[in-house]
Amino acid sequence: MVDVSHKTETVRVAIAKSSIIVNEEIHAQIAEGTNKKGDVFAVAQIAAVMAAKNTANIIPMCHPLPLTGIDVQFDWAIDHENNHFEILIHAEVKTKGLTGVEMEALTAATSAALTIYDMCKAVGKDMVIGPTMLMKKTGGKNGDFERQL
Amino acid sequence: MVDVSHKTETVRVAIAKSSIIVNEEIHAQIAEGTNKKGDVFAVAQIAAVMAAKNTANIIPMCHPLPLTGIDVQFDWAIDHENNHFEILIHAEVKTKGLTGVEMEALTAATSAALTIYDMCKAVGKDMVIGPTMLMKKTGGKNGDFERQL
Amino acid sequence: MVDVSHKTETVRVAIAKSSIIVNEEIHAQIAEGTNKKGDVFAVAQIAAVMAAKNTANIIPMCHPLPLTGIDVQFDWAIDHENNHFEILIHAEVKTKGLTGVEMEALTAATSAALTIYDMCKAVGKDMVIGPTMLMKKTGGKNGDFERQL
Amino acid sequence: MVDVSHKTETVRVAIAKSSIIVNEEIHAQIAEGTNKKGDVFAVAQIAAVMAAKNTANIIPMCHPLPLTGIDVQFDWAIDHENNHFEILIHAEVKTKGLTGVEMEALTAATSAALTIYDMCKAVGKDMVIGPTMLMKKTGGKNGDFERQL
Amino acid sequence: MVDVSHKTETVRVAIAKSSIIVNEEIHAQIAEGTNKKGDVFAVAQIAAVMAAKNTANIIPMCHPLPLTGIDVQFDWAIDHENNHFEILIHAEVKTKGLTGVEMEALTAATSAALTIYDMCKAVGKDMVIGPTMLMKKTGGKNGDFERQL
Amino acid sequence: MVDVSHKTETVRVAIAKSSIIVNEEIHAQIAEGTNKKGDVFAVAQIAAVMAAKNTANIIPMCHPLPLTGIDVQFDWAIDHENNHFEILIHAEVKTKGLTGVEMEALTAATSAALTIYDMCKAVGKDMVIGPTMLMKKTGGKNGDFERQL
Repeated sequence: MVDVSHKTETVRVAIAKSSIIVNEEIHAQIAEGTNKKGDVFAVAQIAAVMAAKNTANIIPMCHPLPLTGIDVQFDWAIDHENNHFEILIHAEVKTKGLTGVEMEALTAATSAALTIYDMCKAVGKDMVIGPTMLMKKTGGKNGDFERQL
Repeated sequence: MVDVSHKTETVRVAIAKSSIIVNEEIHAQIAEGTNKKGDVFAVAQIAAVMAAKNTANIIPMCHPLPLTGIDVQFDWAIDHENNHFEILIHAEVKTKGLTGVEMEALTAATSAALTIYDMCKAVGKDMVIGPTMLMKKTGGKNGDFERQL
Repeated sequence: MVDVSHKTETVRVAIAKSSIIVNEEIHAQIAEGTNKKGDVFAVAQIAAVMAAKNTANIIPMCHPLPLTGIDVQFDWAIDHENNHFEILIHAEVKTKGLTGVEMEALTAATSAALTIYDMCKAVGKDMVIGPTMLMKKTGGKNGDFERQL
Repeated sequence: MVDVSHKTETVRVAIAKSSIIVNEEIHAQIAEGTNKKGDVFAVAQIAAVMAAKNTANIIPMCHPLPLTGIDVQFDWAIDHENNHFEILIHAEVKTKGLTGVEMEALTAATSAALTIYDMCKAVGKDMVIGPTMLMKKTGGKNGDFERQL
Repeated sequence: MVDVSHKTETVRVAIAKSSIIVNEEIHAQIAEGTNKKGDVFAVAQIAAVMAAKNTANIIPMCHPLPLTGIDVQFDWAIDHENNHFEILIHAEVKTKGLTGVEMEALTAATSAALTIYDMCKAVGKDMVIGPTMLMKKTGGKNGDFERQL
Repeated sequence: MVDVSHKTETVRVAIAKSSIIVNEEIHAQIAEGTNKKGDVFAVAQIAAVMAAKNTANIIPMCHPLPLTGIDVQFDWAIDHENNHFEILIHAEVKTKGLTGVEMEALTAATSAALTIYDMCKAVGKDMVIGPTMLMKKTGGKNGDFERQL
C-alpha cells in the first residue's frame, strides 16, 4: 500500500454513478413497494453506505479513511415504448483525509446496484448492472477530475 | 432475510461476468507488469475471492453460505484500431448449501473490477466498469438460468 | 469455545424482544417519515439482519452458524395521556445448525434498538433501550424455552 | 450518512450504562470463577471493547471514528432478600474526532451485556438485559448531555 | 480458492503451537495479574478464538468453515538460571466440515501470541514470537499428520 | 483500551520480521511459479496488507489507526548443503496517528507467513513459522526501539 504519510489532510469529494436495467415487473414492484424482501431503495442505500465505510477491506491496496459523509440517490430512466426500465445510481462520498475517496464512491454505487439485484432476482435474473464510473473528484494535490460526456 | 430452512442442501454454481475498459498506458503497465502497486490481476483475483466470501456482509439480505470453490479469470479484448483495451472478468462460485450463489459470483466479478480500477487509477481515472451480469446458474429447485445472448 | 461437533443439525428458532422509549417529537418524525437520516424502521431492520449474521464476531464465545431466516418487526406502544411513546422490537432468527440462535435473536433485537437511537438522537438523547430478553427458543436436545410472563 | 466534514476535531467522551439480571446460580458461578466458558467479566469487557471499535459496522448511519480510549466496568447490585442479582455495566468511550461517541458507548455496554448472557445461558435463559441508556456526553459544538435522574 | 464441493463432511481436528519469550518483569506482571491492560491470558485466549473464527478473512485462499470447537491453553516454560521466561501456546480447533482446520489452529495460536505481545509491550518490545507450527491434524481423506519431534 | 487522547499525532513507523522454513519441493514450486493456488508471494503480500489494516479487529486492546503505508518484502535464505529453504518476511508499516504501529507490522509479517503456509500445505505440513519479532520502531514520545542483534 503506497505511502501517503506526507500528503495533506484536506476535504475530498468523489462522485460515482452506476445503474441497473430491470424488467417491467421489477419496476412495478419497486414503484408500488410490493417487493417481499423490503423497501428496495432503502436497503440499497444502506448497503451503499456500509460498503463505502468498508472499502479498505474490499479493495486490498486501498487506504483506510474516516469518511465524513455519504449520499446515495436513485432515479428512474424509463422508456415505455422500448420497454426499458433503468435505475440510475448516484453516490457521493466525502472525507477529511490524506487520500481521495474515488474507490469509496465507486464501491458505494456498485454495492447499491448489487443489492437491488439481490432484492429483485426472484422476479428475473437477467438484470444488467452498469456501466459504473467515476464522475467527479475534488480535493488533494493531484488535480481534480471531471468526466467528459 | 427470507426463510430458507426448508430448502435442500445441493451443489450450486453461479457464473458472472464483468469488465473494465482501460487506456493504452494502463494496458501496457499490466501486460508488462510495471504497475507500481503490484501484479494487477493477482491482486484483483484475491480481492474477488475475499469479497465473494464476504458477500453476506456486503449485501444486506443475502444468506451466509460456506463457499466451496471460487475461480476468477481475466482476458483481454483489444481492438488496436479503435484504441480499445478491455479486461473481461469471469467469476465462478460454488457452494454446497441451501441457496444459490448468484450474489457471490456478481460480487466477486465486481470486486475484481473495482480493484483493477484502484490499482490503475494513478494513470487515468476514466476507466469504465461493466456491464456486469449473471451468465449462468445451476442447482436448486427454482430452475437453472443461462443468459440468452 | 465449547465443542459442539457431536450435536445434531436441526432447525432451531429463537425469538427475542427489545424496546426503546422515545419522546413525542421522535415519534412524530418516525410516524410521518420526516427523519433526516432516512426511514428509521427500514434502517433498523437491516441493522438487525446484518448484526444477526455477525453475531459470532460480536459475541466472543458464540459459534458461527449459517442463519437461514431472520425476521424483525416493530410495533408502537403509545399512551398519549402519560406521554409515553415506545417502540417494541421483535426479532426471530432461524438456522439449520448444531447450536441454538438465542444470541443471534438477542443481537438482532439490540442492534435494531441501537440503530433507532442513532437515527433519532439529534432530537433527544434520553431515549431508553430495553429491557431486552429471550422470549422463546425451540430446537436442539436441551429442551425448549418459553418465557413465563 | 450526514456530512460532518465541517465539524471540528475535539476530544469527545460518552458514558453509557446497561445491566443484566441473573439468577443466584449464575451469580455464584461468576463470583467464584467457575463458569465453564471462562472468566465472564473478562470476556464481556473484551467484547465491549471490540464492539465499540466496530460500531460503524453495526450501526448503519454511524460515522467511523478512531477511538482513543475505552473503559468498561462491572458492579454487582445484590438484594439477597428479594433474590435479586444484577450486574451493572458502565462503559466510557473517548475519541479525538469530528462526531460524538454516544453510539460507541451504548454499543460497548450492550455487547458486554449480550456476552454475559452468552457465557451464562447454559444455567438459565431468563436473564433480562437493560434498560440501556446514555448517561453523559461531552465535547463537540451541540452541547453536553447529562441524564437527569 | 480450490473446489472442495466433492469432499465429505467429517469431524476434523487440528492442533498448533506457538510461543513467546518475555522478560522477567513481564513474567511477574502476568503471574501476579498486575498488567494494566487486563488479564493477559484471558485476552489472548479470546483473541485466539475470535481470530480462528475469522481465519477465512485473514488467509485469502482459505475456505470458510463453521468451527464447532476451539480450545486454547497457556503454559510457562521457565529457566530462572538462564533468565528464560517463555509462554507456550497450544491451540486446538474442531469443525464438522469439508476441509481441514490447520489454518484456523495456526491462526489461533499466532493471534494469542500477538495479543500477549500487545498487552505487554509497554514493559519491553524485544519479546520473540514462535516458532509456530502445526502439531497434529486428523479427519479428511488426505491422511492424518503428526509432527515428528 | 488505554486512553491515548492526549498523545500527539506524528508519523510513526514500525518494522517487523518473520520467516517460514519450507521443503525443497515447496521452494521449487514458488521459484517456478507452479503452485496451483496462485502466486504465493503475491497472495501473501496482499494478506499482509489487509491484515495490517485489520489489526485492531484481531488484537483486542489495539487502537484503530488509519495506516498510511504498508510495505512487505520476501527474500530467500537457502543453504542447499543442509537442505534448508527459508523465506524471510520483512514488513514495514506507517501511520500518522496517536499510537505506534508495532502490532500492525507484527500482524502483517505473521499473516504473510500464515498465508504462505496455506498456499503450500498440500505439499508438506511441517513448515515452521518464525521466530517473529519487532525490528525497529520510530515516532512517538516513548522513545525509539531498535533490536540488538
